[in-house]
Order: sequence, then structure tokens, then C-alpha cells
Amino acid sequence: VQGVKDAKPNHSPRAVAVRFDDETGELVLLDQTALPGEVRYLRLSEPSQVREAIYELKVRGAPAIGVAAAYGVYLGVSRLSARDALSIERVFEEARGLLQSSRPTAVNLTWALDRMARRLSAEKGGSVEQIRAALKQEADAIRAEDEEVCRRIGENGLALLGRNWGILTHCNAGALATAGWGTALAPLYLGTERGYGFKVFADETRPLLQGVRLTAWELHVAGIDVTIICDNMASHVMRQGWVQAVLVGCDRVAANGDTANKIGTSGVAILAKHYGIPFYVHAPVSTIDRACATGRDIPIEERPPEEITEKWYARRMAPEGVKAFNPAFDVTDHELVSAIVTERGVIRPPYDQGIRQLFE
Amino acid sequence: VQGVKDAKPNHSPRAVAVRFDDETGELVLLDQTALPGEVRYLRLSEPSQVREAIYELKVRGAPAIGVAAAYGVYLGVSRLSARDALSIERVFEEARGLLQSSRPTAVNLTWALDRMARRLSAEKGGSVEQIRAALKQEADAIRAEDEEVCRRIGENGLALLGRNWGILTHCNAGALATAGWGTALAPLYLGTERGYGFKVFADETRPLLQGVRLTAWELHVAGIDVTIICDNMASHVMRQGWVQAVLVGCDRVAANGDTANKIGTSGVAILAKHYGIPFYVHAPVSTIDRACATGRDIPIEERPPEEITEKWYARRMAPEGVKAFNPAFDVTDHELVSAIVTERGVIRPPYDQGIRQLFE
Repeated sequence: VQGVKDAKPNHSPRAVAVRFDDETGELVLLDQTALPGEVRYLRLSEPSQVREAIYELKVRGAPAIGVAAAYGVYLGVSRLSARDALSIERVFEEARGLLQSSRPTAVNLTWALDRMARRLSAEKGGSVEQIRAALKQEADAIRAEDEEVCRRIGENGLALLGRNWGILTHCNAGALATAGWGTALAPLYLGTERGYGFKVFADETRPLLQGVRLTAWELHVAGIDVTIICDNMASHVMRQGWVQAVLVGCDRVAANGDTANKIGTSGVAILAKHYGIPFYVHAPVSTIDRACATGRDIPIEERPPEEITEKWYARRMAPEGVKAFNPAFDVTDHELVSAIVTERGVIRPPYDQGIRQLFE
Repeated sequence: VQGVKDAKPNHSPRAVAVRFDDETGELVLLDQTALPGEVRYLRLSEPSQVREAIYELKVRGAPAIGVAAAYGVYLGVSRLSARDALSIERVFEEARGLLQSSRPTAVNLTWALDRMARRLSAEKGGSVEQIRAALKQEADAIRAEDEEVCRRIGENGLALLGRNWGILTHCNAGALATAGWGTALAPLYLGTERGYGFKVFADETRPLLQGVRLTAWELHVAGIDVTIICDNMASHVMRQGWVQAVLVGCDRVAANGDTANKIGTSGVAILAKHYGIPFYVHAPVSTIDRACATGRDIPIEERPPEEITEKWYARRMAPEGVKAFNPAFDVTDHELVSAIVTERGVIRPPYDQGIRQLFE
């Protein structure tokens, strides 16, 4: 491997992608579009700002989006006063609608907003102050639970890995994608603390480069051995025998175990199967959408072609007038998934049965 | 598909990647690093300039490199005069060594230089003028034959395709990669003339973006329907049923049918097999290297990590100090190849036998 530079990693504490500042009443997001060049925090006080931050991927990753959306609706009602009692539901629903439509694929967004709505219902008849406090508490709980979920996914996932393994990961399902240590990357942080000595390959993940900008950044900062490869190099790296497991996150799991995740995930899963490498999907239970029977029912977000043809570049790379197709996610068939790692345990095939049991 | 813009294609004549200007005695290359933004021609008169142009990918594609290298050694001896008779072999060998080492994976480079060396041997004892003329004639023949080879590969390849098929291609094996209409793209040009109505998906082909910069450009200019996708979107596009065949070029074929081509090709082949899509490799016979028993014997060029972390971008995309691995080619196992299309016909498995017969 060429290009090894001996930069000293920082071993700094985990990046905090999303938190609430109780003193100022603002949602604080690490602006992920500025990474890795700049560590910049956004302070938001309006649901519309949260919507924009989600759409523009300043905050991204299914669990982090869920947490941000929960605080987003809270922001909508946070400055209502007693005389606004009658309008609280309208204000809440307005904020909810705004946030709901920001990204279609990740189900945690809907899950978090539904949970906030249920809390609002439960508080019906309370004072504006009581309702505000209850919604704040609910959003805080969603954030805190996500942190705990990450820890448990880390433990459950680590049990599937061996010492000195080569690990390939796609996109970013780490600290930057959650309120905790991440989903797919959580086992790597935990294992590293326990001396596992992983060697990680991070797919750069076109077109938005979450692998090179985010995964490589957070693992390097944590002192974990990480090597960037282009998405199309995964097959070559696997063929060399350098990968013992593929770990990915997930935006939505259907009832049959089909999973939607960042575009390219299904391709990596097919390669892993070809080379006989286990392919593990890491998903909080909140990511499972039993209303989707199969992956065919999961909506796939399509984003602007300019993200492929122009974004990041010093000059436009595509010829003028040529079409570009930019789906942001794809569906990995459940038959390609070796196991789904959740905070409640590891689900193995047959997934329809395993998922049903999880909710019983 | 979003982002369709109705730009009128030019229907201009085929781009000429490599030609010799007999009036000025210069090798004229279309500078492919400036595409698609700028159509700029380089005029070269020294073997060292040709070496640099090959290494920097100003000319690329196995057949085009072969043609450029043939003219490259000719340039070395082209200005020798009668009194240099004794040094002609030394000058030739110097130029040959320089060019030989410019890129290791494509075998056409070696093949063309060996052919020029055989011609030099055949002319032994001739005058400097005679030798110069013979070498020029040989380089011209290599160029002209490549054009004819492309035409025949086009015919042979087209016979495998159907009307209105969706075609996926990786990297650039078109007019820009050869002295003619290309290898993998030749059937598309020919079929388009005959009203086949192909719909082409061009993998962008990181890190050097030959798909987005070159393939999309030359197909669009020729009026062929082309859509750019990121490399990691091929699986999703295949899953939609939009691809009926994958067509790729080739830098070297081993005796058992294993083929080296642009990094990512092996991954596309694995996806094609998974989805039951035929995967066709297009290769002039000069690309077959019977001295390589299997793909394990083909040297894989590794290029600077900065091509991944910095090249093309307005700002560096990778965190400082993080490793990047940048193999320029990979090997596709012969079991993944549905057929190898050459100018002498289509080879089907078992390839060891088919390749042997080709040379009998």
C-alpha cells in the first residue's frame, strides 16, 4: 500500500454529531459538509433550519437524523407561550410535516417524529409549559437511548469479529451518523479499546464521499488503522484476501430482512457473497419497518445529478448536456445478508421469523 | 431519471486520439486530461514527451498506448542522419526502454514495441534513411491495423447484442482508447448506425473518471443515449432490469482467459453474474499474452494516492495523514466472462482452448 504518511492521530474524544444546548435552547450540529477540512458547528433554533440541515446532509445517518428531527419539532413549540395553547398542535404538525418530507428513505426520521407525536397526544390537556417540557424530555430520551443502542450494537457486533481482521465498510455508520459511537463502526471502536487491531478499508462512497470525508476522519482521529479505497476497488481488495468481514449501517429494514442503505451497499453485499466474506448489517430496532413487506416497498430517494457531475470539483467533470442518474440508496436483498445486528441481539436468517420474534 | 437536459449532440466525426502529422513529423495526441472541458491537441517530437504523455494518461487505452509507443520509438530515430548509422540501435533501444516502463499493465505497449524492434532487426544493414522509413511504415501499419481491428471487433460484438438493449460499460474503451472506433464501444457505434437504439450507462470510473469525462463525451458527441452513474450504482441499475449486457475493454488477457482491465471491472463482472447479465470483454488479439498463464501473473499498476484524495477537487477531500490505496487495474476471473470478442471472432469458454486455437 502506497501513500502511508505517519501522521499522529489525535485520540480525541468522539465527535458529537448532534446535541442540544440547554443554555441557549439551540440544536447544535457538527456540519458534516465541511468535514474533513473544517470542524464547524451549526446552532439552529427553527424547524425550517433543521429541515434544511437534513436535506443538505449537514446532519446525516439514519439515527442522527431521527434525533435531529425530534429536536426539530421541539424547537417548533419551544417558544410558544401560555396564550398559544390552542395553536400548539398546529405548530407541532407544521414542523412535523416540514421535517417528515426532508428525506424519504431513512425510517428513523418517521419513527422519531411519530414518537414525538405520541408524546404530544399523551400530554393533551396539559399547559403549554408542561407540553414543551414533555417534548423536550422525549427528544432527550431519543438521543440518550440512541447512545445506549450504539453501545449495545457495538457489543453484539463485536462478538462476530476476530482479532486482526480486515474490515470493509461503506458510507458512514459511525459516531457522525448517530448520537453515540455509531452502528456499523461501534464494534470497531469497542474492539479497538480491547486490543482487536482491526485494519479498516473505507469505501469513498460516491457521490457524496461520506467514506473518505467522514468514516476515514472519525476512525483516524480515534487512532484506528484506516485505508481509503474508491468504491470500485472493493472487489480487488477482497480478492487479495484482505477483508474478513463487511460492516454496514442501514436506513430501513423491511419485514423480510431486505435492507435499504447508502447507494452501493447492495453491490458490496454481492461481492462479499462472491468472495465468501460475511456481510453484517447494523440497525437499531427503530430502523425496522414492518409496514414494508420487502425492499420493493422502500422509497429510494433520488438526488440532483449535479452531485455527480459538479459537486466538490474545481471544474465540471461531465460533458454539458449528458444525463446523470443519482439514486441515494439501494436495496440489499436479505439473501445477501449474513446477519442483522441490533441492540436486542443478532438476527440470523430466516429474517421474517427473526424480525417477528423481536417484536413479540 | 432526473437531470435530462436536451442538449443537441454534435454528430461530429469521431475523435482522433492518436495520429501522426507527416508534414511536421510530429505525433499528435488529443490531450485526454483536458476533456471534456477542452479539446486540446498535443504535438510531440521526442520519445520522452511520449513517455510522459502515456504516464500522465494524456493518451490512454491499451490500443492507443500501443500506437503512441510505436510512433514514440520512431520519433527517437526520425531525425538521425546518415552519419548516425552506428548509433541507430542504441537510440532505438533507449527510446524503447523509456516507453516500455511508462505503464506496466497494458500488454499492447510491449507488443507494439516488440513489433517495431523486429522490424528494426529485419532492416539490419540498411541505410539510416531506409531504416527510418521502415519504422515509420511499421508504426503507420500498427495504427491502420488497429482501426481495422476496431471495425471487426465492432461487427463481432454487435452480433451478441439486441435492439433497444440497455448496455453498461466501465472506463473508456472507445474511440479515445484506440486508433479507430474503440473496442467495447465499437459495437455501439456500429449498432447505432444500423438503428439499434441502445441506452448506455457509463460508470464514472474513479479515481480518474474516464467514464464521465471520456465515454460520456464521445458517445454524447456521436448522438448515442448515455447516462452517467457512479461506480457504486451499477448494482442498483442492474436490479431495475435496465441492463441487458455489460461491455468492457481489456488491457491484457492471460492464457486461461483471466483479463486485466481498469480497476472496478472485476466488481462489475461479479454483479453481472449475480443478475444473470452477459459480460463481454473486447480485446484485440494483440492484448492476449500467452506468456501469462493466469491473471496472477499480470502486473497491476499502483498509482499515487493523491489521485484519490486530491485530484480534480477544489479542496482536499481526505483527512490529512490517512492512507489511500490506488490500484489502477484489477483481474476478472475467466469464469465471470461470458465471451471475449476479438477481431478474429468471439471466444467462448473454455478459454484456454479457445485462445490456443486462435494462435494455431
